[in-house]
Amino acid sequence: MKLLEDRIREDGLVLPGNVLKVNQFLNHQIDPELMYALAEEFVKLYKDEKITKILTIEASGIAPAIMTGLLLRVPVLFARKQKSSTMNEGLYTAEVYSYTKKVKNTVSVDEKFLKKEDRVLIIDDFLANGQAVQGLIEICHEAHADIVGVGIAIEKSFQEGAELIRNQGVRLESLARISSFADNKVHFVEDADNE
Amino acid sequence: MKLLEDRIREDGLVLPGNVLKVNQFLNHQIDPELMYALAEEFVKLYKDEKITKILTIEASGIAPAIMTGLLLRVPVLFARKQKSSTMNEGLYTAEVYSYTKKVKNTVSVDEKFLKKEDRVLIIDDFLANGQAVQGLIEICHEAHADIVGVGIAIEKSFQEGAELIRNQGVRLESLARISSFADNKVHFVEDADNE
Repeated sequence: MKLLEDRIREDGLVLPGNVLKVNQFLNHQIDPELMYALAEEFVKLYKDEKITKILTIEASGIAPAIMTGLLLRVPVLFARKQKSSTMNEGLYTAEVYSYTKKVKNTVSVDEKFLKKEDRVLIIDDFLANGQAVQGLIEICHEAHADIVGVGIAIEKSFQEGAELIRNQGVRLESLARISSFADNKVHFVEDADNE
Repeated sequence: MKLLEDRIREDGLVLPGNVLKVNQFLNHQIDPELMYALAEEFVKLYKDEKITKILTIEASGIAPAIMTGLLLRVPVLFARKQKSSTMNEGLYTAEVYSYTKKVKNTVSVDEKFLKKEDRVLIIDDFLANGQAVQGLIEICHEAHADIVGVGIAIEKSFQEGAELIRNQGVRLESLARISSFADNKVHFVEDADNE
């Protein structure tokens, strides 16, 4: 998606350790109109899928997810992160390891809000190692809900997350796919294809 | 706001200890169209204020804030919560005590995204003791930004938050104001006025 790639080139910061900082428009300060545009793209990609629910994870998945829910007129459910996994009654839970923060979190969703009749679109802002999305997939399995697919704003295609998800037969659509940060610049998968 | 009050009556759960659970439409599962309607109301209330930025706090403030930002075409900034206050360089921070979770968090915002030229509308889902909003007000003061006002979805008017904010001369607009949970039912301030 050109709009998002341009924005990443313009306002993204490449930091040591393959870190891309996009807190100017995505995960600290948020550009609502960009979120709306991302949502329009997700809706185009998944338009025939009779989605009944959007599932995301706090905090920075909420903005693109809520816009997608607005356009599709379906509820948006966000998984909560907790340090420990006490008080799990009535919850679907999954363990998620964050490579960035080097902590293990339990993510959870109230059983009331995810049913086997649901057709779920999973939305998140970033896909790198894929641990968060994997946790959301497991939660859908626990609920016996159908996973229509996953919609990601920014995918780091050189990390294992994308493969992890596709290998399970889950459809993955990422609006910007980063192939490398060579020379401290952001290179997209499309760039590489053209070279 | 009748739409919100009706929804609280219909889908809110009153629990012991004056707890109102609205995780069916506001802070776990979210109704995007309701969030859009809340945003329209905030925009109506603050339409002449030349707002340049929405400030909220993760996680459940993000949904109503992003819709308000969409309508006003201004960026939305969400403060992050951390347990400790290490690595505060380049951040505006405030200490926030959560009575619900009985923990003290440091909330923070990157200095880059809040300037003295900004005219800020603070948005949050809930106002009870007012600690979170108070933290956001302090952050605005640190940045020497103007606070246009505060927009809240649900205010528990019988707790001290509303007074705490108004006593500082900060405008507060809450879309549903709860006067009590007598007999395990939700009573709104307007109800009391009519009785």
